[in-house]
Amino acid sequence: MNEQTKYVLDEAHLPEAWYNINADMPVPPQPVLNPQTLEPVTPEFLNVLFPMNLIGQEVSPDRWIEIPEPVREVYKLWRPTPLFRARRLELVLDTPAHIYYKYEGVSPVGSHKPNTAVPQAFYNKEAGTQALTTETGAGQWGSALAMACNFFDIDLEVYMVKVSYQQKPYRRVIMETYGAEVFPSPTEKTAVGRQILAQDANSPGSLGIAISEAVEVAATSGGTKKYSLGSVLNHVLLHQTVIGLEALDQMEMADEYPDMVIGCTGGGSNFAGLAYPFLHQNFTNGKSTRVIAVEPTSCPTLTRGHYTFDYGDTAGMAPIVKMHTLGRNFVPAGIHAGGLRYHGMSPSLSALVHNGDIEAQAVNQLATFEAAIQFAKAEGIVAAPESAHAIRVAIDEALHCKEAGDKKVILFNLSGHGHFDMGAYNDFLQGKLQDYEYPAEAVEAAMAQLPEIELA
Amino acid sequence: MNEQTKYVLDEAHLPEAWYNINADMPVPPQPVLNPQTLEPVTPEFLNVLFPMNLIGQEVSPDRWIEIPEPVREVYKLWRPTPLFRARRLELVLDTPAHIYYKYEGVSPVGSHKPNTAVPQAFYNKEAGTQALTTETGAGQWGSALAMACNFFDIDLEVYMVKVSYQQKPYRRVIMETYGAEVFPSPTEKTAVGRQILAQDANSPGSLGIAISEAVEVAATSGGTKKYSLGSVLNHVLLHQTVIGLEALDQMEMADEYPDMVIGCTGGGSNFAGLAYPFLHQNFTNGKSTRVIAVEPTSCPTLTRGHYTFDYGDTAGMAPIVKMHTLGRNFVPAGIHAGGLRYHGMSPSLSALVHNGDIEAQAVNQLATFEAAIQFAKAEGIVAAPESAHAIRVAIDEALHCKEAGDKKVILFNLSGHGHFDMGAYNDFLQGKLQDYEYPAEAVEAAMAQLPEIELA
Repeated sequence: MNEQTKYVLDEAHLPEAWYNINADMPVPPQPVLNPQTLEPVTPEFLNVLFPMNLIGQEVSPDRWIEIPEPVREVYKLWRPTPLFRARRLELVLDTPAHIYYKYEGVSPVGSHKPNTAVPQAFYNKEAGTQALTTETGAGQWGSALAMACNFFDIDLEVYMVKVSYQQKPYRRVIMETYGAEVFPSPTEKTAVGRQILAQDANSPGSLGIAISEAVEVAATSGGTKKYSLGSVLNHVLLHQTVIGLEALDQMEMADEYPDMVIGCTGGGSNFAGLAYPFLHQNFTNGKSTRVIAVEPTSCPTLTRGHYTFDYGDTAGMAPIVKMHTLGRNFVPAGIHAGGLRYHGMSPSLSALVHNGDIEAQAVNQLATFEAAIQFAKAEGIVAAPESAHAIRVAIDEALHCKEAGDKKVILFNLSGHGHFDMGAYNDFLQGKLQDYEYPAEAVEAAMAQLPEIELA
Repeated sequence: MNEQTKYVLDEAHLPEAWYNINADMPVPPQPVLNPQTLEPVTPEFLNVLFPMNLIGQEVSPDRWIEIPEPVREVYKLWRPTPLFRARRLELVLDTPAHIYYKYEGVSPVGSHKPNTAVPQAFYNKEAGTQALTTETGAGQWGSALAMACNFFDIDLEVYMVKVSYQQKPYRRVIMETYGAEVFPSPTEKTAVGRQILAQDANSPGSLGIAISEAVEVAATSGGTKKYSLGSVLNHVLLHQTVIGLEALDQMEMADEYPDMVIGCTGGGSNFAGLAYPFLHQNFTNGKSTRVIAVEPTSCPTLTRGHYTFDYGDTAGMAPIVKMHTLGRNFVPAGIHAGGLRYHGMSPSLSALVHNGDIEAQAVNQLATFEAAIQFAKAEGIVAAPESAHAIRVAIDEALHCKEAGDKKVILFNLSGHGHFDMGAYNDFLQGKLQDYEYPAEAVEAAMAQLPEIELA
């Protein structure tokens, strides 16, 4: 055990540019469609929701996008994050594999989400935005954006899925600590919310509904408010690439290179953040790292959804993109990985899975918590339930290596800590959790409801 | 803002030895007394509770105590911890002072407590201990020891103050995640617990009661169980000095030296961990850093308690030490800094305050949360309510510097994050918290009840 376990970079080694996978996509980009006209969106349409500088990043063909100095200054509050060699876990598993993890839980809110929240707040401030709206499920994204908006002096309204607002008040409080306003969604503040409450006054809400509300508030604000999304979009994913760019340097410090890179996927942002810089090496530098996206069986977007055009939100107000989707009305089971319960997926990630550049796997909830507890007992860190999906597959792959006597190098993203999620661990320890695997008919029925959208 | 904000050390710079202030105490040590005989304790008496190797550290005159390699290996899971220059806070305060903070919240359980939990588990394992008992209030200590015992394969029973067990289940769950058994104290498992429950079946418990229970279980185990304490004792404080030893290196990286070192004090361990290595410089190297211990006005042990011999626990089963104390029956108000609600204080820290080497200040709860929120908005990190006491005084001192035009260097210990304490922030934001300052008569009455212990 007397070898290095932690690879730290000082702030002089913070990346100076984000990596934009648009420059290296092996397949042509698909258009983003206006949900009313079904025609490709115009920048003017998107500008109702997003400032032009972020729209520019969304479609930029540039491989490298410079990180503005004020963003780097905030990043330095927790970045570069450490890369660990999981030596204790390797011993427990008795595997010849070398397991590394990049740990994003050291940010002030305990997850990777500030990596994009901070630049989004910065670019909005640059563009003159005075207020932002957003949605949040369990609250990881909302707390990150609340911190970022506070730093750049922007007001923030967060539409928080009502059941989480009621059952997980701690993330609400951290948002309020940073000065954000938080509303339990569905609310009476929007037409979408009022319509849903008229049908069911006790609606527990969903991420899709909360997105619709946050989008409606921005779209009807007469330009005073913009909207911010914490995953899925290209500018979000590219902001996250600081994770993988740092990890490339840190793997070099460890004098190894990963045979596998693993991350969990909800909308795709933490996964892409780690994986895309390694895909860049695959595409342009002759590397052949396996890149594995892990999702829950209860929301099997990549493994069982269709790759087609669909709406980003429940109400059909958000732009239409080509992606893996279970349909905008898909209601995933109430698993404890709130960040992985989105019906769709990032378009670039979907295209790369479709093209065979990225593998996708789905894992069950119980096996995921078993992996999380094995990891906590070996490495100390109690992972967020989302991140535990990556741990599960990393352990599985390390055990395959043991069987095969194969000394592979495995790298996964530990995207956040679980200190806000101990209720989920409690349920698991008390035997209250179960697995959710959708029967084929249920998935077929959902797929049959997908809109058939022909390009205009 | 384009200057360094974060000073990181790689694991090669992890300290190789702890600093033991016994070697440099400016006043002679006071004896520890057997609570039954009132005579100085023998190692045999202490050995009922603690293994001989830790008893040896308790009374060691050696200035440096080598950190065993297996302990350093575990430390590397989060240490060295970062030192930050709080540039954003300096800007907000518009102060000429330079404010630094050492951040212990990056440990897997979010606080400094594992710094001693890990060596205590290691030394117990070395001594053949198979099971440990301990108490915990809000759960910071219990979760740290649960992680440590898991690493060294020792069983752990935690007696958790019942009101926290019921109201703050998350820390209980993290202890259980690492494999510990947690009981709401008072329990029916001990004579002390049964006696208290007989008087009040609904007793909410207290830290003093929980200590008595954990001590009783170890003392009556026939040698199969030892007891572990998370603060107060010399071996605990010296394990924490990795904090200050790293900070000395990091201040040198920053090319500055602190005029003031500040920490919060409950039993004294995080404070001593940062401060004692700087006191060592004061004592032996001609430095004259002001060293400031901060406690809550609701438990004003150092500022209003007496410096005298008193029992370490409520039931009078623990050894008697000379310390600042409010009396073992003192019940502090229900403030949200659970770690600062102990009636006594570390003997060495008490002696150093008595001798004038350390200053003590008490701060109110509301001002403390105001400081915590100002800090969170400036620096991002939401602090544990305990650590917020140090923030309050650091901000006060920085504001004094502003008035005086004085460019002082301030260093404080941010001993943990507040992600488990958002209920307290919620109460503060909703205006439900209040200040507790004891009237002089109440303190006098408590002091009148202190035992008059003459050395035998």
